[in-house]
Amino acid sequence: MSKQPVTREEALEYHQYPRAGKLAIETTTELKTQEDLSKAYTPGVAFPCLEIEENPENAYKYTAKRNLVAVITNGTAVLGLGNIGALAAKPVMEGKSVLFKKFSAIDSFDIEVDEENPEKFIDVCKAIAPTFGGINLEDIKSPECFEIEKRLIEELDIPVMHDDQHGTAIITSAGVINACDILGKKLEELKVVVVGAGAAAISCSRMYKAIGIKNIIMIDSKGVCHDGRDDLNKFKKEFSVKEPMTKMDAFREADMVLGLSRPGTFTQEHIAVMADEPIVFTLANPTPELFPDEILAIRDKALVGTGRSDFNNQVNNVIGFPFIFRGALDVKAKKINMAMKKAAAYAIADLAKKPVTDDIKAIFGDHITYSKEYIIPKPFDKRLIVEISSAVAKAAVESGVAREKNYDHEAYREQLSKMI
Amino acid sequence: MSKQPVTREEALEYHQYPRAGKLAIETTTELKTQEDLSKAYTPGVAFPCLEIEENPENAYKYTAKRNLVAVITNGTAVLGLGNIGALAAKPVMEGKSVLFKKFSAIDSFDIEVDEENPEKFIDVCKAIAPTFGGINLEDIKSPECFEIEKRLIEELDIPVMHDDQHGTAIITSAGVINACDILGKKLEELKVVVVGAGAAAISCSRMYKAIGIKNIIMIDSKGVCHDGRDDLNKFKKEFSVKEPMTKMDAFREADMVLGLSRPGTFTQEHIAVMADEPIVFTLANPTPELFPDEILAIRDKALVGTGRSDFNNQVNNVIGFPFIFRGALDVKAKKINMAMKKAAAYAIADLAKKPVTDDIKAIFGDHITYSKEYIIPKPFDKRLIVEISSAVAKAAVESGVAREKNYDHEAYREQLSKMI
Repeated sequence: MSKQPVTREEALEYHQYPRAGKLAIETTTELKTQEDLSKAYTPGVAFPCLEIEENPENAYKYTAKRNLVAVITNGTAVLGLGNIGALAAKPVMEGKSVLFKKFSAIDSFDIEVDEENPEKFIDVCKAIAPTFGGINLEDIKSPECFEIEKRLIEELDIPVMHDDQHGTAIITSAGVINACDILGKKLEELKVVVVGAGAAAISCSRMYKAIGIKNIIMIDSKGVCHDGRDDLNKFKKEFSVKEPMTKMDAFREADMVLGLSRPGTFTQEHIAVMADEPIVFTLANPTPELFPDEILAIRDKALVGTGRSDFNNQVNNVIGFPFIFRGALDVKAKKINMAMKKAAAYAIADLAKKPVTDDIKAIFGDHITYSKEYIIPKPFDKRLIVEISSAVAKAAVESGVAREKNYDHEAYREQLSKMI
Repeated sequence: MSKQPVTREEALEYHQYPRAGKLAIETTTELKTQEDLSKAYTPGVAFPCLEIEENPENAYKYTAKRNLVAVITNGTAVLGLGNIGALAAKPVMEGKSVLFKKFSAIDSFDIEVDEENPEKFIDVCKAIAPTFGGINLEDIKSPECFEIEKRLIEELDIPVMHDDQHGTAIITSAGVINACDILGKKLEELKVVVVGAGAAAISCSRMYKAIGIKNIIMIDSKGVCHDGRDDLNKFKKEFSVKEPMTKMDAFREADMVLGLSRPGTFTQEHIAVMADEPIVFTLANPTPELFPDEILAIRDKALVGTGRSDFNNQVNNVIGFPFIFRGALDVKAKKINMAMKKAAAYAIADLAKKPVTDDIKAIFGDHITYSKEYIIPKPFDKRLIVEISSAVAKAAVESGVAREKNYDHEAYREQLSKMI
């Protein structure tokens, strides 16, 4: 079942062809004559420099900053590969930049930072920040990633988001919202078990609280996080329960499990004791904690999601970050705050409720309709950019973090519909 | 005479149109299907990551590093504008990246670093270096720029060059070589006065020594640099003369003056006391120390060069850096050393001796032929890339700083002739 969708040879050839890497720089202006040269460079270029020196916000008018997001890593927690270092992480970061460009027309550039010390890494990001309109932190190990993101959000005036944390949080939040809607469960009554306690698990748990979920039990490699344990970092402590309990206790009558761990961290025995019609997100990738057919064999009414494209309900970050940054950039937001992340989650949830378009049916079949098997929109859905980016932009304006003062929601949606 | 070639309005419109800034990112690979997504990103992207983890040189094979140069500044000495800061420097740096792309097909990306402290600036550059195949330092003030460049050359294994220093040095070296050839002067007997003692002046003086010039007198804002002065930094001391002398003494019987200062730092009176057929490079920009007609009015046999495109013998860095980095990248050089810089200077000098092509004649007129009025090739000469890049690549291989072990000079020249 864990079929290999891409071979080593195919992947390596893709990265060599038509030339090394996946990104190139293009120029957006003419440079054919001596006069063009005098505008692009000395002496003409001095004029936009002076405009920016006078008012820093003019950088959004005269430079690429307006539409530019850095994908920054130190290579300490790359995909499932672990700490492979800054240089070896470059293909992943280039890939992320490719996704920004293809899905939301954002110019994005990868920066690999050879620095594991969090304070020094923060200094580097702050130093190069004037270059960019936003920063997508990527594949930085936990728990350092929390402090790094928090400090950069506080100390910079451009949107900063660690996608490994928030991407999954936003998309699974959309999934939970729709799962409850379909199953007739209430968020505030939901009992949720989170298996895993890394960056994504902490961020998901925080976001679940923000959308109204009250009962969350977190399980790390040592078992349930509870107040009696002295080995919990401050992030796990946010979600530790009062009394000790076994993993089986945690699963008993749970409405939902979110797996962000490794294959085998929970089994069919755990699924068996969950509440009626359980919600099971097994997001370990590429091999999930349990495969969908293993879950459905025990509980045929379960609602299942994975991180994979070859099963229903794929939790794929690509339906989040490109559109979240698109909305944030377009209103020149200073931050990506919880209001914007919630707006993104609800926009994703709402879009899944709408009838799918013909081009999506052409790929996935006519049966795709809002149901247990389809609670999250597909990555190539062209409506994602309009719905998510406009929701995020509106939330930025309403929560007071947008520099743009003349935001027109309908005009912006119209503009987005023509963007890709 | 100091006509304004570009108006403020024209320059600002150029930077706004068709959208903010002058650079965009393009993707070089297909991303239309779920399968493409699996190659560009997870899970397929893990394969090139693992190849690079195993052997860092594979980054040249599977990532954009192969053809990627960062233009890095801290905005402390931008054009004639001075210390305008990192952000306000961005239009200039984007412009530099545009020139890399247009003249030598190098993908180049600007990084503005908000850090004036040299040690911290060095740390930032070192930290982000894995991202790039080369670093072009730009518009960093003197004397900090010397230590910054020296340290980065020593401590990184990719080519690093501060163009403000070496670009002018290489191109004026080519100019001096040809001027001596035309005027029948000998480099080793030349008396040269350098007016200015900043980054470019120091670097020019160093390079002039490397090509055989022995008699150099440097003049800063306080006068001639001599051993009796206690206000000289260690870079000026490299060129200080033993005994005090006046500026007029310095100019007397001088064969050449190199102006890298401001309008008015030397006058017709100084030109009047120079040797027969003096070489006068007045490179202050946009307004030279003296205009060509002011020089020729006093010494009608002078050979004159400026930094401007509207006079003969333009010393324009754009005929250097794009091709120097092209050659360095293509043999995966670890450094740009003096052998490579000298090779570039001689290649530029030799090209000016060849008959110009029809497309250059079409722009500049049929009269363009090797003479006092044409000692340096024009920026849009399509042969520059072949001549300079191949000379630099060959010098890198011969001086032992190239990673490429199978260099074929003729094949490379053929390849370069098709590149732009």
